[in-house]
Amino acid sequence: SVNPDLASERQTASFSVEKLTALLDGGTEQTRIRRAVVEAIESDPVFSRENQYFQTQNERYEAAVRKAVHLQTKMHEMGWTENGPEYKYIYRALSGDVAFLLHRVFMRSISVLGSDKQIAKWIPLATQHKLIGSYAQTELGHGTYLQGLETTAVFDTATQEFILNTPKISAMKWWPGDMGRSATHTVVFAQLYIHGKCYGIHPFIVQIRSLQDHSLCPGITAGDIGPKMNFEHIDNGYLLLKNVRIPRENMLSKFCEVRPDGTYVRQGSQQINYFTMTTVRISLISDEVLTPLMKACTIAIRYSVVRRQSKLKPGEQEAKILDYQTQQEKLLPQLAAAYAFHFINDYLQELFNRGYREIQRKNFDMLPELHALSSGFKAVITQHCTAGVEICLRACGGHGYSLLSGLPSLYTKILASCIYEGENTILLLQTARFLIKCFMAANAGQPVPPSVTYLAAVKHGKCPAKNKLDFLSPDIYTEAYQHVAVRLTSSTAAKLQDLIQSGVKKHDAWNQCTVQLVQAAKAHCHYIAVKNFAETVEKLETKAGIQKIMKHLCDLFALHGIFSNTGAFLHDGYTSAAQMDMVTASYLDLLAIIRKDAVPLVDAFDFTDKSLNSALGSYDGQVYQRLYEWAQKSPTNQMSPAYERYLKPLLHNTLSKL
Amino acid sequence: SVNPDLASERQTASFSVEKLTALLDGGTEQTRIRRAVVEAIESDPVFSRENQYFQTQNERYEAAVRKAVHLQTKMHEMGWTENGPEYKYIYRALSGDVAFLLHRVFMRSISVLGSDKQIAKWIPLATQHKLIGSYAQTELGHGTYLQGLETTAVFDTATQEFILNTPKISAMKWWPGDMGRSATHTVVFAQLYIHGKCYGIHPFIVQIRSLQDHSLCPGITAGDIGPKMNFEHIDNGYLLLKNVRIPRENMLSKFCEVRPDGTYVRQGSQQINYFTMTTVRISLISDEVLTPLMKACTIAIRYSVVRRQSKLKPGEQEAKILDYQTQQEKLLPQLAAAYAFHFINDYLQELFNRGYREIQRKNFDMLPELHALSSGFKAVITQHCTAGVEICLRACGGHGYSLLSGLPSLYTKILASCIYEGENTILLLQTARFLIKCFMAANAGQPVPPSVTYLAAVKHGKCPAKNKLDFLSPDIYTEAYQHVAVRLTSSTAAKLQDLIQSGVKKHDAWNQCTVQLVQAAKAHCHYIAVKNFAETVEKLETKAGIQKIMKHLCDLFALHGIFSNTGAFLHDGYTSAAQMDMVTASYLDLLAIIRKDAVPLVDAFDFTDKSLNSALGSYDGQVYQRLYEWAQKSPTNQMSPAYERYLKPLLHNTLSKL
Repeated sequence: SVNPDLASERQTASFSVEKLTALLDGGTEQTRIRRAVVEAIESDPVFSRENQYFQTQNERYEAAVRKAVHLQTKMHEMGWTENGPEYKYIYRALSGDVAFLLHRVFMRSISVLGSDKQIAKWIPLATQHKLIGSYAQTELGHGTYLQGLETTAVFDTATQEFILNTPKISAMKWWPGDMGRSATHTVVFAQLYIHGKCYGIHPFIVQIRSLQDHSLCPGITAGDIGPKMNFEHIDNGYLLLKNVRIPRENMLSKFCEVRPDGTYVRQGSQQINYFTMTTVRISLISDEVLTPLMKACTIAIRYSVVRRQSKLKPGEQEAKILDYQTQQEKLLPQLAAAYAFHFINDYLQELFNRGYREIQRKNFDMLPELHALSSGFKAVITQHCTAGVEICLRACGGHGYSLLSGLPSLYTKILASCIYEGENTILLLQTARFLIKCFMAANAGQPVPPSVTYLAAVKHGKCPAKNKLDFLSPDIYTEAYQHVAVRLTSSTAAKLQDLIQSGVKKHDAWNQCTVQLVQAAKAHCHYIAVKNFAETVEKLETKAGIQKIMKHLCDLFALHGIFSNTGAFLHDGYTSAAQMDMVTASYLDLLAIIRKDAVPLVDAFDFTDKSLNSALGSYDGQVYQRLYEWAQKSPTNQMSPAYERYLKPLLHNTLSKL
Repeated sequence: SVNPDLASERQTASFSVEKLTALLDGGTEQTRIRRAVVEAIESDPVFSRENQYFQTQNERYEAAVRKAVHLQTKMHEMGWTENGPEYKYIYRALSGDVAFLLHRVFMRSISVLGSDKQIAKWIPLATQHKLIGSYAQTELGHGTYLQGLETTAVFDTATQEFILNTPKISAMKWWPGDMGRSATHTVVFAQLYIHGKCYGIHPFIVQIRSLQDHSLCPGITAGDIGPKMNFEHIDNGYLLLKNVRIPRENMLSKFCEVRPDGTYVRQGSQQINYFTMTTVRISLISDEVLTPLMKACTIAIRYSVVRRQSKLKPGEQEAKILDYQTQQEKLLPQLAAAYAFHFINDYLQELFNRGYREIQRKNFDMLPELHALSSGFKAVITQHCTAGVEICLRACGGHGYSLLSGLPSLYTKILASCIYEGENTILLLQTARFLIKCFMAANAGQPVPPSVTYLAAVKHGKCPAKNKLDFLSPDIYTEAYQHVAVRLTSSTAAKLQDLIQSGVKKHDAWNQCTVQLVQAAKAHCHYIAVKNFAETVEKLETKAGIQKIMKHLCDLFALHGIFSNTGAFLHDGYTSAAQMDMVTASYLDLLAIIRKDAVPLVDAFDFTDKSLNSALGSYDGQVYQRLYEWAQKSPTNQMSPAYERYLKPLLHNTLSKL
C-alpha cells in the first residue's frame, strides 16, 4: 500500500508521467525495451544488489566478478548482442555494479590503436573472454599530463623485443580498473626508446598474469590499491614492471610502427585519439552523472513528501517538509538541472554523431569545437550533479546519512566523475583556451565554429525586463546568460593581453588569468545549456501538459543560475538591482508552482525500487518500515566479540539489579 | 628523509611556526600539555588507527569499545582526570575514534536534569562504568521538532510506575549512539501522560539490557541501525518499548516532578535546557569541525607541493601543483577560513563563559543572543568547513579519492556535523528570527544585544575604496560586510511586513521569506567572523612575523567572501563594478603571497603523522612510497575466492600462452 502522503502527490499531476518518460527515453519503443531489460536483470537473483550496503570490499569485488561472468550467460539466454538495442540499458540496469569494465576499454583501445593483424588476433580472444584485459595509463606520479609518464619500453633489435620497466616508484601504474586482481593482460602506455632515443608515449599489450594459474608473470609486481571512497567492486590496481620482455608485435601499431631494424615509422592521423577522449567524456554523462542525480532527486523528493516535521501553520498537523520554501529551494533546482542536462546530453550526442560522420569523411574541422564542448560540459555537469546529489543527501537529514538511504553511495560514486577522465579544472581551462582563441578570431573577422559565433557580437545594452513576468521569457534570460559569457571571455582576454603587453611572459600571464578563465568557460557552458533547454521546450508537443511543465523547469533552471550568481549579471549593470529583485520574486514563485508536480516529475525518471536500492525512495513511500526491516539484517546486529572481551569484564562487578 | 620539494617550502617561512602553534593553543604551556597527551596516546598500540581504513563496521566498533575501556586504565596510569588540563586533548588525540561518547551525554543529562537524589544514585555508577548509558531522544519520524516526539510514558498510580511505549513505528528511537550494542541504560524522552492528560516531553532513565548477560530487558527491542556514511565505530541504535515499566523515581525531576498521587509539579527554570543545547553546539566546533578542516588543509597543501604535474613554463621541469593559480584558489581560502573560524571559536567560547557566569547569577539576559550566535555559527562553520574539506579532497585528484589519503573519512565524518545537533537550515532560521526581532526593536529605538547594535545604523553610503590596496584595509571590507548584513536583514524584514500587510497570514509570510532569511543570517555571521578576525589581528604581537601573516589571511578570508558572492555587495551599488575588479585583483595577489607560507601555515597546526593517518599528508612528504606500502597491506590483496569460482572456469580453456 502506498503511503497516503505520497499517493496524494500523484493525483494532481499536471501532465502525463508516461508521456514524459517516453520523451526522456526517446520514444515509447525505447521505453518498452528499457523496461524489458530492467525486468530481466532485476528478476535474476545473481544481479541482486540487496546486501550491497552490508558488504566488504572483498565481497563487493567477488559479487562484481560473479555478475560479469553471469552477464555473458544472460545475454546469450536473452538474445542480447553488443550491437542490439538492449545493450545500452544493461549497464544502467546493473547500476554499473559489475566487473570487467576495463576489459571493454582494453578492447576499444586495440580496435582503435591496433593494426588489422593485431585486431584479428586479440579481439576474438577478448570477446570470448579467453583473457581479461585492462588499460594501464595513469601512474602514481602522473595523471592528466600524459607526456610526463615515466614507464619505459626499450626496443632490443637483437631479440626483436621491447623491454618494459618502471624506473622509479612514481612511474608505477596506479588506478587501472580490473588490474588489481582480475586482469591477465593490459595495455601499458610507456615512453618508447629506440637506440637511446625517446619517441614519446606508445601503447603496448603486456601479459601480467598466467592463464594457467593466474600467478603473476616474471618481472611483474601487481596488486590492488586498497580502499577507496566508492568503487569497492572494482579492483583498481598497481603494476610494476622489471625487465618485462614482450614481442615487437605487441606495440599497437595502427599509427606508429617499429620495424625490425629499429626504424620508427609514423603513419596516419593522430587526431582520432583526440576524438576517442571526446567520446568517453560524452558517453559517461548519461550513466555515470545524470542517472545518479536523477536517483538522488527521486529519493529526496519522495522522502520530502512523506517526512513531516514541525508545523507550518499553528494548530495543523506537522507539515510535509517539501512544503517549506527552504526545502523546495534545495531540491527543485536539482530536479530542473537533471532535466536541463538530460537535454544538453542529447545535444552533445547529436553533435558528436555529426562529428563522427565528418571524421569518417576525413574532415576534422569539428574537432576543436567538439573537444571544447565535451571538456567544458564534462566538467560543468559532473560538478553541478555532484553538488546536487550532496544537496539531496543533506536535505534528507539524518536518514540521508544512513547508507540504507542510497544517497551516500550515490554521492561517493558521482564524486569520482569530477576527477576521472580529465580533472575538471584542467578541462575547463581547455574550453577557455578555445574560447579565447575564438574570441580573438571572431574579433579579427575570421570565421568561428557555430557554438561560439555569439562571441563576435559584443552588445553593451541593458536587460529589457520591466516586471517579474518578463523573466519567464526565454529570450530575456538567454540573452542575459549570453551577455555574461561574452563579458567574462572578453574581459579575461583583455587582462591576458594587458599582462603580456606589460611584459609578463605568456605562460605566467595565462596562469594569472586561470581563475577568471575557469569562470568564463563555466559561463559559456551555462549559456549553452540554458539556450538548449529553451529551444528544446519550444519544440515539444503542447499536448498532455508536457511542454508547460518543461517550460517551468527551464525557467527555474535559468533563474536559479542567476539567483545563485547574481554578481555576474549585476557587474556591469546589464541587470539592475530592481531587475534582480524581479528575478528573485519569479524564482521563488516558480518553486511553489513546480513543487506541486515534484513527485510526478521524479516518477517520470521511471526508476524501479531495486534500481534505487533506497529505504527512503521507494515507490510506495513506506520509509520507516523499510529502514527498520533493513537495519535488522545488518551484520552489526550479530553478536560482537566486544561484549565478552571488553564489556563483560567492565560490567561484571555491577549490582545485578539497579 | 624529507622530500626536498617539501623541505624547501619550510626554509622560507616568513614567521615562527612554533610561535603560531602556541598562539593557536593559547600559550606555550598548553602546547606542552597537548603534545604530552598526544605522545602518550600515540605511543600506546591499543589506540592505533593504523588499520582503520581496512576495517569493517564490526571491527571498527570492537576497536572503539576496546579503546574506551583501555582509556580508563590509561587515564589512571597517566594521572589524568576529567577536571585536569589534559582532558580536553584526549578526545582530539584519539581523533574521536572511541566508544561511549553518549555515556558522557547520559551523565551530563542526569547532572543537569536530575534531582540531587538521582545524581547521588546514578552518577557514581556511571563514573565507575558499572553501567553504560546512552541518550534516546531522536525518533525514526522525529528529529528537530521535539514536541512531535511520539514515545509515551503513562503514569500508573497503582504501581507508582511509568509505562513506556512506542505507539507506532515512527515513534521508535533511532540514531542514539552507544545504544545499538553497548548500552545497558538510556535516558528516554517521552510524552508524559497522567490520568489521560499529556504534559509534554520528559526524560526517563530506562534500563535496556541485563547487567548479568547483556540480554535485552523485557519489553525492549533494540539493535544497531546499520551502515552509515561514517561513524562505523559508533553503534547508533534503535529502541522499541512495549509496556516497559520503570519506577516513579526514574523520571529526571530537577524541574518537574510527578507526586505519588499523580500531581504534576513544575519547579525551577526551564531556560537552562536551552543553554545546554547552546553549550553542545559551541563545544563541537573545535574538535568535530575545525580539526577536520585543519587536517584536510594540511594533507592537501603538503601534497600540492610534492605533486608535480604538467609544465607551467616550457622547458622547465613539471610544476608543483600549488604553483597553479587555480590550485591556490581552491586551497588557500580554506586555510584562511580555518584560522578565521579558530578565532571566532575563541570569541564564542569567551561569550559563552560570560553567559554562564551570568546564568549562575540568575541573569538570563544573554540567552537569546547566545542562542542566535551559537545556532548561526554552528550552521555557517559546519557548512563552510564541510565544503572546505571536500575542496581539499578534490584538489588532490585521484589520490584524494583513496581512503589512504585520509580525506574521504574526514569528509564523510564532518558532513554529519551539518545535520546533527540541529539541522543547519533550521538553525539559520532561528538566527534570522532573532535578527528580525532585533532589527525591529532597534528601529523602534529599543535596546538590543551588542552583536546586533549595528542593525540600527542603516547607512546608505558607498564603499570609499579608490584602488586595490584599499581593499586590504579591514575598515573597508568589514564595513562592506556590515552593509550587506544590514541590507539583507532590512529588505527581508520589509518583505515580511509587506506580505502581512497585503493579507498573507503570518506563518505563510514567514515561509515565503525563508530563503532570504537564511541569506540574512549567513551574512550576519560572516560579518561577525570578518570583524572578529580583523580585531584579533590588531591585538597580535608584531614579533616573529605572526601579525603580518595573520593579516594576510584575514584579508584573504574577507576578500574571498566578497569574490565568491559579488552580487550581495554589488546589489544596491554599495560596491561598484570598478571596485569589484579591485577586489578581484587584490584577492588574486594575496593568493600568490600566502602561497609562499602555505606549508608553514599548516605545519603550525602541529598534527602528527599518526593523527593525520594519511598517505598524502605526512610531515616528510614521501607520498608515493607510503601509498604503495600501505596498499600492499589491504585485505584486497589477499587471495579472492572469485578466482577459483568464476575466473578459472572462464579462462580454463584459453591457450596456455598467447
